[in-house]
Amino acid sequence: MRVICSQSDLKANLSLVSRVVPSKPTHPVLANVLLEADQETGRVKLTGFDLNLGIRTSLDAQIIESGSLTVPAKLMNDIISRLPDGEITLINDPEDENNANVLQIQSMSGSFQVRGMEAEEYPALPTIEEGETLSLPIDALMEGLKGTSFAASTDDTKQVLTGVHFIGSQDSLELAATDGHRLSTIQTSLESDDDEDEDSTTFDLTDFEITIPAKSLREVEKMLANSQDGDQLILHVDESQVIFELGRQTLITRKLEGTYPSYRQLIPTQFKRQMTVDRKRLLNALEVVAVLADQKNNIVKFSIDSEKEQLSLSVDAKELGSGKQTMPAEVTGDSIHIGFNVKYLMDGLKALPSDEITIHMNEPTQPVIFNPLGGVKMTYLVMPVQLRD
Amino acid sequence: MRVICSQSDLKANLSLVSRVVPSKPTHPVLANVLLEADQETGRVKLTGFDLNLGIRTSLDAQIIESGSLTVPAKLMNDIISRLPDGEITLINDPEDENNANVLQIQSMSGSFQVRGMEAEEYPALPTIEEGETLSLPIDALMEGLKGTSFAASTDDTKQVLTGVHFIGSQDSLELAATDGHRLSTIQTSLESDDDEDEDSTTFDLTDFEITIPAKSLREVEKMLANSQDGDQLILHVDESQVIFELGRQTLITRKLEGTYPSYRQLIPTQFKRQMTVDRKRLLNALEVVAVLADQKNNIVKFSIDSEKEQLSLSVDAKELGSGKQTMPAEVTGDSIHIGFNVKYLMDGLKALPSDEITIHMNEPTQPVIFNPLGGVKMTYLVMPVQLRD
Repeated sequence: MRVICSQSDLKANLSLVSRVVPSKPTHPVLANVLLEADQETGRVKLTGFDLNLGIRTSLDAQIIESGSLTVPAKLMNDIISRLPDGEITLINDPEDENNANVLQIQSMSGSFQVRGMEAEEYPALPTIEEGETLSLPIDALMEGLKGTSFAASTDDTKQVLTGVHFIGSQDSLELAATDGHRLSTIQTSLESDDDEDEDSTTFDLTDFEITIPAKSLREVEKMLANSQDGDQLILHVDESQVIFELGRQTLITRKLEGTYPSYRQLIPTQFKRQMTVDRKRLLNALEVVAVLADQKNNIVKFSIDSEKEQLSLSVDAKELGSGKQTMPAEVTGDSIHIGFNVKYLMDGLKALPSDEITIHMNEPTQPVIFNPLGGVKMTYLVMPVQLRD
Repeated sequence: MRVICSQSDLKANLSLVSRVVPSKPTHPVLANVLLEADQETGRVKLTGFDLNLGIRTSLDAQIIESGSLTVPAKLMNDIISRLPDGEITLINDPEDENNANVLQIQSMSGSFQVRGMEAEEYPALPTIEEGETLSLPIDALMEGLKGTSFAASTDDTKQVLTGVHFIGSQDSLELAATDGHRLSTIQTSLESDDDEDEDSTTFDLTDFEITIPAKSLREVEKMLANSQDGDQLILHVDESQVIFELGRQTLITRKLEGTYPSYRQLIPTQFKRQMTVDRKRLLNALEVVAVLADQKNNIVKFSIDSEKEQLSLSVDAKELGSGKQTMPAEVTGDSIHIGFNVKYLMDGLKALPSDEITIHMNEPTQPVIFNPLGGVKMTYLVMPVQLRD
């Protein structure tokens, strides 16, 4: 392999694939990144893979000689990112008896030799030969992920709950995530807002249903955040894997097996009480009282006064102290005291995409629903906690 | 105590004193900050103290009733910093049987009760009745601390080496710090550069000699960084303590006992070799090769070629790989190979205050001196390490 490329391109692509390289790999070669230089395409492909999640990207380069090798991802990343901007030459000579697996890195300011492992030792990324191929709207997907993925469980034993569930139809895509204590779901429209855009893709997600690890989707979010206008996101799906393709980037992740809970039936449709408040004001008030709630069981008490049209949040951390914050609210229905885990509330309030939000309640032991006011169809459900007074 | 003050003032002063409050206090009351409201002065004094280092500041406030109390520093800081900008009322009623030690914090948005401890339980900050009082030039002190304190030992068993040593004279102040492997010293002038400034203070530091913990001086540096034009820095020194006074801030620290090493005799005065290089270029090159040096013994090899007028840095991390960076240098004297701890070099290069630096050497086993080119009189001495080739 003999390749001339730009330091900035190589640095950007290395940092992309390095994100999925495990810090404690189950096999030494998984700590490496796979480099594949192909004279025909004029590109160097880079691959990182932890057996569950893989990212492959490629950069344009002057390929004087094709070849492939794996090198330690962290070391390579650390070196390339510190080299000055300019041309970098990568050389590997598999015929060199003592240095068959050594990558030479040459820059204007000097050179490095990094010992790697043969490309043959690197596990092949799964491929999808048979299966569905479909296109997803990038904006809708980003909106959906932002509003749901935070609610997935981070406990690996919870299996299907560590994922985000997708359900498509002819004209919409619904995403949902829950960890058993709270649930967030967003319904996004597949119709383009922009009627004048003649070229706009039409999407049909009829019968599309899948659960994907939230951890993998966080990488998808980063990939989408760097997408350009006009980029298309293509999905290939088979029984066990999903491939996301965006421009030159490919992300492959396993699907989560198992039946996703029928969450729609958990969402009440009738409510006795309703309150509209300023989202940021409520979030700030929660952040102050969370200081004390942190010290104890994380419980914050909502006292909603329908006569005074106000909401009071209070926490009582016994020996340490107590706190109370009060704000105006539009209240419908009887006054009520109701307890919440302050962390779940803050998570949801950060994700709700509107200035004002509406909170729908029945009794202090029944699920509570948070909705944004206008625009996005997001539903955040939180189970209240019992107050001991 | 009943006090009305501004949230932003209280927040700024709390964060100042909280820095010295220990996270694992030897006595519960040391986790607290002492609040003292005095109707006569119209100020609230705040004190933090870990028995070695104390900071006291004060803020203007409307004092309706004098009083004092200690409250948990972290909790108080967390609450006040999250409250909205505006008026804050602090109330403590020592007559209230159940809540004699409770501080009430009232803001526009709500209120908090924080349980504290009596002011009487808080240890008194040491005072200096008899001793020297002198004035120090703020700019010279900042320059001196920036160029030396990083070289002090962080190992508490090294006692006097954990400090920065000050030696004054009629017209200069010299600071020095060493951990036994490297030494940094700066000589600053006490004469004002600004001849037109009629009001400029004149300093006389004859017979001033003292060693102060580097840890305390880092807080002094932060204090000085916020100083205003025209502020005076006053020192009170007795046998065991030093007090720094700047405006409304007071910092008190113990001195370090013991004789400071006679470091001046360690600095060679004659050199066989000399090299001038670009400081940032050398620092960048060290940062790249440090990636590999980190993996091993942190040794970087300097190969100085007087014919080619160039400097090569190289590291060899055996199984991992190796690296080399080359740059131009003005070289006087014979070519030489010499080894250094890469960390010591980077520390010194970050602190040296000039674009170009001069490196003075004799043999590969003798101390090496780094000087800035022009301006500040700084000397950075590093002991080379033996190369095994």
